Parts: sequence; C-alpha cells; structure tokens
Amino acid sequence: MLKVDVLGRPAEDNALWATLDAGQGQTRLLLDCGAGTLDAVPFSQLQAVDAVLFSHLHMDHVGGFDTLFRAIFDRPAAATAGNQVWGPPGTARILSHRFRGYWWNHAPELSGVWHVHDVHHNHIHSYRFEANEAFEVAHDEGQQAHDGLILNTPQFSVEALPLHHHGVSLGYVVREAGRVTVNTGKLAELGLKPGAWLAQLKAGAEGMLDVNGVPHDAAALKAQLLEQTPGQSFAYLTDFVLTPAEQERLAPKLAGVQTLYLEAQYLPEDAPLAERHQHTTVEQGAALAAAVGVEQLVLLHLSRRYRPERWPEFLAAARAIFPATDFPAGWLRDAAEES
Amino acid sequence: MLKVDVLGRPAEDNALWATLDAGQGQTRLLLDCGAGTLDAVPFSQLQAVDAVLFSHLHMDHVGGFDTLFRAIFDRPAAATAGNQVWGPPGTARILSHRFRGYWWNHAPELSGVWHVHDVHHNHIHSYRFEANEAFEVAHDEGQQAHDGLILNTPQFSVEALPLHHHGVSLGYVVREAGRVTVNTGKLAELGLKPGAWLAQLKAGAEGMLDVNGVPHDAAALKAQLLEQTPGQSFAYLTDFVLTPAEQERLAPKLAGVQTLYLEAQYLPEDAPLAERHQHTTVEQGAALAAAVGVEQLVLLHLSRRYRPERWPEFLAAARAIFPATDFPAGWLRDAAEES
Repeated sequence: MLKVDVLGRPAEDNALWATLDAGQGQTRLLLDCGAGTLDAVPFSQLQAVDAVLFSHLHMDHVGGFDTLFRAIFDRPAAATAGNQVWGPPGTARILSHRFRGYWWNHAPELSGVWHVHDVHHNHIHSYRFEANEAFEVAHDEGQQAHDGLILNTPQFSVEALPLHHHGVSLGYVVREAGRVTVNTGKLAELGLKPGAWLAQLKAGAEGMLDVNGVPHDAAALKAQLLEQTPGQSFAYLTDFVLTPAEQERLAPKLAGVQTLYLEAQYLPEDAPLAERHQHTTVEQGAALAAAVGVEQLVLLHLSRRYRPERWPEFLAAARAIFPATDFPAGWLRDAAEES
Repeated sequence: MLKVDVLGRPAEDNALWATLDAGQGQTRLLLDCGAGTLDAVPFSQLQAVDAVLFSHLHMDHVGGFDTLFRAIFDRPAAATAGNQVWGPPGTARILSHRFRGYWWNHAPELSGVWHVHDVHHNHIHSYRFEANEAFEVAHDEGQQAHDGLILNTPQFSVEALPLHHHGVSLGYVVREAGRVTVNTGKLAELGLKPGAWLAQLKAGAEGMLDVNGVPHDAAALKAQLLEQTPGQSFAYLTDFVLTPAEQERLAPKLAGVQTLYLEAQYLPEDAPLAERHQHTTVEQGAALAAAVGVEQLVLLHLSRRYRPERWPEFLAAARAIFPATDFPAGWLRDAAEES
C-alpha cells in the first residue's frame, strides 16, 4: 500500500510525504522540505522517517529542514539505518553547513549519525556525519556506481532522474515492489495443503520441491499457483525545464508510473517566464502525463504570482490535455477561502 | 513608545519582537528566533527588522532562522544598515554555516550584506558576509572595545549581559532614549514665543542664546523649560543559571528596567533539574525581579515537561515573591484550551 500526502499549501512551499506498507511495516519517505511543509506531519512520524530525497537545495525546498533535523538529529545508527539523505551533487556540502548551524556544546553526549548521498550522473558519492563530532567531519564513505536506481529494497525502489534547473534538480520515481500472492482456488483444485513449501515456492525454489512429503516440480507449481500483483508507484518532478526533447527523454523512464506529482509553476501564457526561470508550464506537464500514460496527474508548486481565483485555470489548462488531473486534496477549498 | 511581543506558544520555542518608536520612525528588534516563533510576524515587518540579538544558538533559539533569512537574505547594505546580528562568541561561525545551507547558483545576482557581531567580554568581533560571494568569505571587520553597551543610537541602547549556560548566553537590556520635552506652561509664563531657538536649546546650546532677537542665558532657560521624560525599557534573560551570587551580580545592571522578560523553565520543586541543565526556576526569577524592583515580570520559556494545567502554578509561585508577574497575553487561554 502506498499513500502520498502533498505537504504545504498552494503557491507556498510544497513537499511530499510518502508512506509505503508492503505488510512488513511502514517505510516513510520525505521528498523535499520547504518552509512550513512539515507542520502537518506529526513529530512521531518525522522521528520515524526512513529516507529524505531532495530535488535540489534552493530555499523553497530546504527551508523547513530545521523541523526535520530537530526530530532526528540524534537518531543513532543502531536504532535505524541512521539518517539517510539523497540529493544532487553538492547536497552533502550544503547539509554539512546546516548540521553545523547550531551551538553543539553537548556534542560528546550525542550519537546521531547522518549519511548523505550526492547522486551524480553515474555514481553516488556518500558521506557520513556524526553528532558527537559536532558534525565537523565529512567522512568519505566512497562512491558507488548506479544506473538510475539509487535505493532498492525488498519493499520498494527509488530511481533518480536528473532534470535541468540552473544545474541539476533530481526527479524521483518510487515503486513499491510487486507482491506475489497464492491463488487459493487453484491450490484447492490441485488438492494441495498450504505449508512451508509455499514460502519456499514464493522465495524462488527450483527443481523438485517437497510438498508435504510429496515431490512436485517447482516451476510447474509456480506457473499454476503464483500471481504477481504489481506494486503502486509515483513520480515527483519539480523545478525543471520541460522541452519536447526533455519530454522524449523522460517519458520512457516514467513508464508504468501511476501518479505523477509535477510542478506547475506557470500558466501557458507565461511560457517565457517558465523558460527564463527554468520551470515548466502546466501545459508542458500535462503533455508529459499524456505521453507517459499515467493514471493521474497531481499539480503542485504553483507560482506565487497567481492569486487564488486563478488557481482553477491550472486545472482547466491541464485537463484540456490530460483529463485525469487534480490538485492535492483541499487546495481548491483554500482557493475559495482566500479569494 | 516601546512595544514588546512575546512570540511562540507556552512550552514551545519563544522569542521577542520589540518595536521602538521615538517619533523618528520605527526600530524593530528580534531577540532569538526559535522554531515557529516568526509565524506571527508579518513578512513585511520581518523585512524591516533592524537588529537580531541572539541569547545563544541552541536549537530552540535558532530553529526559525530560515524564516528570518528568507525575508532579508538579499537586503542590500545601501537600503538599510545591512543585516545586523549580535550574539555570544561563536555566533559568526555558526551563522556562516547557516548562510551556506542553500544552493547559491544565483549568487552573482545578489547584493545582500550581513554583519555578525560576536560579543566577547570586553570587545566585539565583527564579520561581514556577502550574498554575491555565496557567503563563502567571513570578512574580518575587526574588534571594538565595549563596556556592556553594544548598540547606542539617538533612539535606543542595547546592553549585553553575559550569563552562564554551559558557556555564554547573553541577556539583553534595551532602553529607549529619554525624551526632552518643553514645558509649554512655563514658556507662556516667561512670555517667550517658540522658534528655532527651542531646537537649539534641546540640542544642548550653551552660553547666550538668541531668543527671537533677544539674548538669554541658555543654562537658565534649560533649567526652567526643559523636562526629561525617561524612555521605556525592558530586559530579556533566558537560559541561565541564577544563583544568589548571580542575582547580586545582575540586579545592579538591570537598574531602572521596567519590564523583565525571563525564562521560567522549572517549578521550584524541580530546582535540581534547573541546576543540572543550567536553567532557572520561576522562584529564582521572581526573586531577581523583586531585587531589581522592576515594574513587571513576564514569564516565558516554560519547560515542555509541564502540562498546560500546571502552567498557572508558575504564576502562583512567582506572585508569592513578586506580585506583578504575568504570562504573555493569551497564554492562559492556550492552557485552558489544551488541558
């Protein structure tokens, strides 16, 4: 199960809070953390965040970092995987400054550990920072090659998509792992009783498999009994140039994505501004959603230049190209209240 | 006229926003900026802040810095005195990290200037940081001796009081300049007409003064016509040890202060905690207020350990020693709503 909450209000800073639950416990991902975006996330949830993914570190994407930091700055590596942060090249350097933006007289009593991963084109360069050193040392944890996939666990995967925005902004594609389920009707039909062998089959057993004392061909059983349920998925793309060439490059990488969370900085009439500031228009975003064939497009990160009464124009412009477009829940209510 | 607003909620981060207006335009001072404290200050007011005074840079006093920074990071020195920040030794180093906690690809277009002043015991060491250098350089602006007075303008003065809190926390005493007013009844009695000479008299004219063509003795006129109205004043003392010896040291420095804004971390029963964490109890604070003879004591910075239904106990404990004690406006309403 995948649940994504868009944090922050329309035309203010936004971020995503994603909760994945594949039946083995929850995984919590935070994508960006602009000013005020974390106010709606309970402190206990923040304390349990598993990974933080930055698109880039402009002010409106990192201005709420202190709130996150206060919740987890001293989370020891023993309790979790430590604090794991991904972002474009330069993220470790910039966060190392944020870590040192406090008076750490009590550092020797602390045990928090942070791992910050700079995602370069073909490799990830990781650094470790320790609270009991007052975060003064960037421990080089080396480089690792990647082909886009930066996180891959039995529960989910995260791909990074480099985008153009005055430099690199990273888009992210998050996919839950597919689930393998047993067709119980078929099981009864074959006259087989459940047992440890089913777990072995799901785990990929090969050759002959002992089914409650009777040997069976694993491959045949697998074909008859196991069904693949694809996992849910979303992508988050913000602060980027979306030319036709970029659409062509990005669309294949988004194949199979269900929900696309996309910046919609500008209305179509302001395309020159979008180009100058290296952002997208809502029309360009809708065209990408249509080219990919996602199930749903959700618009966020509207420019402050538009008054609330104009927000519905974003929906109209997008829906003319891609009908399954929405704002995050509640945004049009906010518009009605503010206009 | 002096107006002080306590920012933040009870048992959360607090800060002070002081507006001084001596008839020559407003001066706005911010004392600390913990998480969420600036949410209640209009952006346009933040953009006009004249000076920021840090007690120290623990998380609960600096966690709202991004909000301040966003309002004024690019304020050019030409428009104002630039951004002026004071704090204990280490402030410039810590803020230099905060300044670098963003991606500054657009630095060459910026013109913001920050002056950060580390207040040592007998001198101030100042540094300048420039946005168009991406804040990478701490320009040493040299040292200046001080005797406690760190800011002194025709409108107001600020004194720094070093306090003990695991190191140095700074208390601040802010005094509006006294006003010189003319006794108009006396003026009529002497049969003198107002004119340019009155401004000269107020500006400190000596010897003989030309009063509308007739020479008069300036000293005699001054004694008869001019009256001193003392300015308003307040002090802000937070996060500090308040032993009887400290009370004896601090009381004379607070002489004449009208309103004392004081941390009240602990109830009297938790004095051992106050000692361990180098904070005060509300009893110690009230005793200081009584020793100084202030007009009013305002309690803030309550520990999170006390539930709202216990907040009134702080008032009761303080009032038993110093009756003119209050919480900031609205705090007991918050307590009633939360309990």
